[in-house]
Amino acid sequence: MDSDYAQIDSILNARSMAVVGASGKPGKFGSVFVLTQLAMGFDGSLYLVNPGEKEIFGRPAFPDLSSLPEVPDLVYLTIPAHLCMDVLEDCGRLGVKGVIVVAAGFRELGAEGEALEGEALRIAREGGFRIIGPNCFGIYNARNGLTLLPGHDLSRTPGDTAFLSQSGGFSVHVARMGNSLGIHFSAVVSYGNGADLNETDFLRYFARDPRTSYIAAYLEGVRNARPFLAALREAAGRKPVILWKVGGSAVSRQAVRSHTGSLAGSAEIWKGAMAQAGAIPASGVDEVLDVLIALRHLGRRPGRRLLLAGGGGGLGTYGADLAEGEGLEVPPLDPGSAAALKEILKRAGAVVANPLDIGTPLIPLPLFGPSMKEAAGNRSTDILVFDLALNFGRNMIGEERLGAAADALALARKDSGKPVAVVLYSRSCDTEDMATEQSLRCFRSRLLGEGIAVFPSMPRAMRAIALANGGCP
Amino acid sequence: MDSDYAQIDSILNARSMAVVGASGKPGKFGSVFVLTQLAMGFDGSLYLVNPGEKEIFGRPAFPDLSSLPEVPDLVYLTIPAHLCMDVLEDCGRLGVKGVIVVAAGFRELGAEGEALEGEALRIAREGGFRIIGPNCFGIYNARNGLTLLPGHDLSRTPGDTAFLSQSGGFSVHVARMGNSLGIHFSAVVSYGNGADLNETDFLRYFARDPRTSYIAAYLEGVRNARPFLAALREAAGRKPVILWKVGGSAVSRQAVRSHTGSLAGSAEIWKGAMAQAGAIPASGVDEVLDVLIALRHLGRRPGRRLLLAGGGGGLGTYGADLAEGEGLEVPPLDPGSAAALKEILKRAGAVVANPLDIGTPLIPLPLFGPSMKEAAGNRSTDILVFDLALNFGRNMIGEERLGAAADALALARKDSGKPVAVVLYSRSCDTEDMATEQSLRCFRSRLLGEGIAVFPSMPRAMRAIALANGGCP
Repeated sequence: MDSDYAQIDSILNARSMAVVGASGKPGKFGSVFVLTQLAMGFDGSLYLVNPGEKEIFGRPAFPDLSSLPEVPDLVYLTIPAHLCMDVLEDCGRLGVKGVIVVAAGFRELGAEGEALEGEALRIAREGGFRIIGPNCFGIYNARNGLTLLPGHDLSRTPGDTAFLSQSGGFSVHVARMGNSLGIHFSAVVSYGNGADLNETDFLRYFARDPRTSYIAAYLEGVRNARPFLAALREAAGRKPVILWKVGGSAVSRQAVRSHTGSLAGSAEIWKGAMAQAGAIPASGVDEVLDVLIALRHLGRRPGRRLLLAGGGGGLGTYGADLAEGEGLEVPPLDPGSAAALKEILKRAGAVVANPLDIGTPLIPLPLFGPSMKEAAGNRSTDILVFDLALNFGRNMIGEERLGAAADALALARKDSGKPVAVVLYSRSCDTEDMATEQSLRCFRSRLLGEGIAVFPSMPRAMRAIALANGGCP
Repeated sequence: MDSDYAQIDSILNARSMAVVGASGKPGKFGSVFVLTQLAMGFDGSLYLVNPGEKEIFGRPAFPDLSSLPEVPDLVYLTIPAHLCMDVLEDCGRLGVKGVIVVAAGFRELGAEGEALEGEALRIAREGGFRIIGPNCFGIYNARNGLTLLPGHDLSRTPGDTAFLSQSGGFSVHVARMGNSLGIHFSAVVSYGNGADLNETDFLRYFARDPRTSYIAAYLEGVRNARPFLAALREAAGRKPVILWKVGGSAVSRQAVRSHTGSLAGSAEIWKGAMAQAGAIPASGVDEVLDVLIALRHLGRRPGRRLLLAGGGGGLGTYGADLAEGEGLEVPPLDPGSAAALKEILKRAGAVVANPLDIGTPLIPLPLFGPSMKEAAGNRSTDILVFDLALNFGRNMIGEERLGAAADALALARKDSGKPVAVVLYSRSCDTEDMATEQSLRCFRSRLLGEGIAVFPSMPRAMRAIALANGGCP
């Protein structure tokens, strides 16, 4: 363990923190953050610092860091850029471990901001503490209850996935969507400009962190390519690493400079570097989460041979086109399984082949269990993908039928010992019917709890499975 | 108007119908359909026919078609394939206008089924009536209340979009999702094997139908390529035609034969034919609906120059990459608009450029209206795309704030006279929090009602705008 590792570890797992710029006045940045952190419930000591306020939401306000009863592990600065330097000097003098600088207005603004950022870094080096940011949303850690700026409702269940992000918005989006899909986090870090601790440091940390089994990252650019690529190779050799790299177009390269003051690098060079390192390229919050679901429930490199099944001929026909487009295969059924399935699915409309059409979207329960069990175990394929085209509308999706379908799929997975994925379309944007949406969410949650991968559309399922196998050939 | 047009028109707008095989016994196909049709509420006379039942859901059952008090315009057969021929003979003898054959078990099964299908066609020709199907879900028409098999809850609001589909499942999926996005239909036709009336007939019909302004189609293969391509050219010359063509891969070509007994044709040939005809290629229910939203709210060929805006730097950076990938442009701001926006958005974190970062995802209302108005009117771009990254969680999305944001965007669109699109991510799959989902659905519905295009993610927005412009270059 090097000193970077220990320093990052003590910051992420801080047992005490101070919010400088905390406020009780509505609409203020420091007020929003304090409410967020209070709602999340930080486990350690939380000190609120503001020389102009006496009490903040019923808690005492301290005039400065020196007045606190202890030196906090972590200081969270919610004050404007030009006011930060004095407080950073205090941090160094007192011996805090880390400081999160939320404010924008540094390197991304050009020469003047760059000088200010350099000054902050100098103070940190001299004071022996580390900076996260500036221009960031901070840290989410379910273990101690530290949270991102708009993250008051993030889960307190710790998990095994790390997400590091140069964008604050995407860090919250991934955390919140992930939570609702049963993906919990060892930590989420929004590090903005990365003036001090940057993508390379966090990647190295999470590669070694025993709590982290999966790493995902949103990157605009890197400070220093060579050490980053070395860290990427090392990390991807230890655990799956998903990289969402933006800045491939000329316009977005300029936007990257304005956003976090980074250099994006060419898309081609990045593509090659990711492939060489064994990292999984992804694009967008949805795709990052789809790949995490695929890795978790289907495994790393789960195989490319799919059995596509559904209640209707169009589903498989469309799915087979998409599979081929992603470099996946839809091979003929194993003769033994084909014979068994023909015996089970003796009904007009069923087509026993790959794709497999069970003949009706209204899942015929007595046939569903046995046919799914046989399909999941089919020897010529690696993964059963069932498209649950629940498009038969309100009132026709009974809880009982959904429950029985989930049981049958869970049993098929267990008995076959092979991965199962389900495509569960979001059914509608109906403003009146929330009951169906809730049923489907509970159904999704139940399937995920059974270790079944769930994707919201066939294109997203095919892409995620291809990426979990290492991307398109 | 040719005779095909008049015949299709009288079938879609039937004023009387008989369901042969209707049943009151739960679980039976004829029972599900009758319940579906009763729930939808057919406006004309609905006769239930079954020689083995006296009363069906409190309504009289007739033993056969000859016993009905009138000859129905339309007969809906919910009986197995081998029992259909005798009833078809009755239909010819009595002089009905059209018959929907729901059952599978015809051409898609091979030589024997093909002979049966040929026999049905011969009876129809001799009897002077037309067949829709076999192997289909029928017709949805909001004007008379005729509905697809699992379509009891489809909207009774008529619209200007036609969808024709070889797949029953996708016909219902598009109809239901469309309804909830404010897309209403002149008609949806699931025509399955297309033994008699097929894709070419329906395309010609909808091209001339004055109620239809947009046509979309799911196609596995076509009966006869030359007349179809002529019909496609004619239709696309009159109104936008979206074509979702499957069967591009070897596996799916085989699946197409098993599903609807069609020949799919090569993907390359289709691509060329669609481009030549001026049809818009799309893939999947989601994409078909996205393109319909784009056409309706942004227009046909709305322009490729986008102003990407959002509250956060990552949104635009990512969006610019996606735009370039779809052949769209993100040009520099017009100098006048840039100056005006700099004056409005004088705050740390805001970046006045294209992409435009308003500095925070927590929409600052006093700045939002004026900045969106200026952005929508920017001269160097055709469309304002605002990414409403509502990822700040439960309780923080107030109805009031959402309402004010919708008003501001609606005003920006109206004042500028230029199209506006919003990216509204589905926030979570949380099983506990349905209130946020409902707020967002109402917000989406309100924006759509104001003529603003809404897409559920940036990749889908960029793809839909590119396709509305005629697809990638």
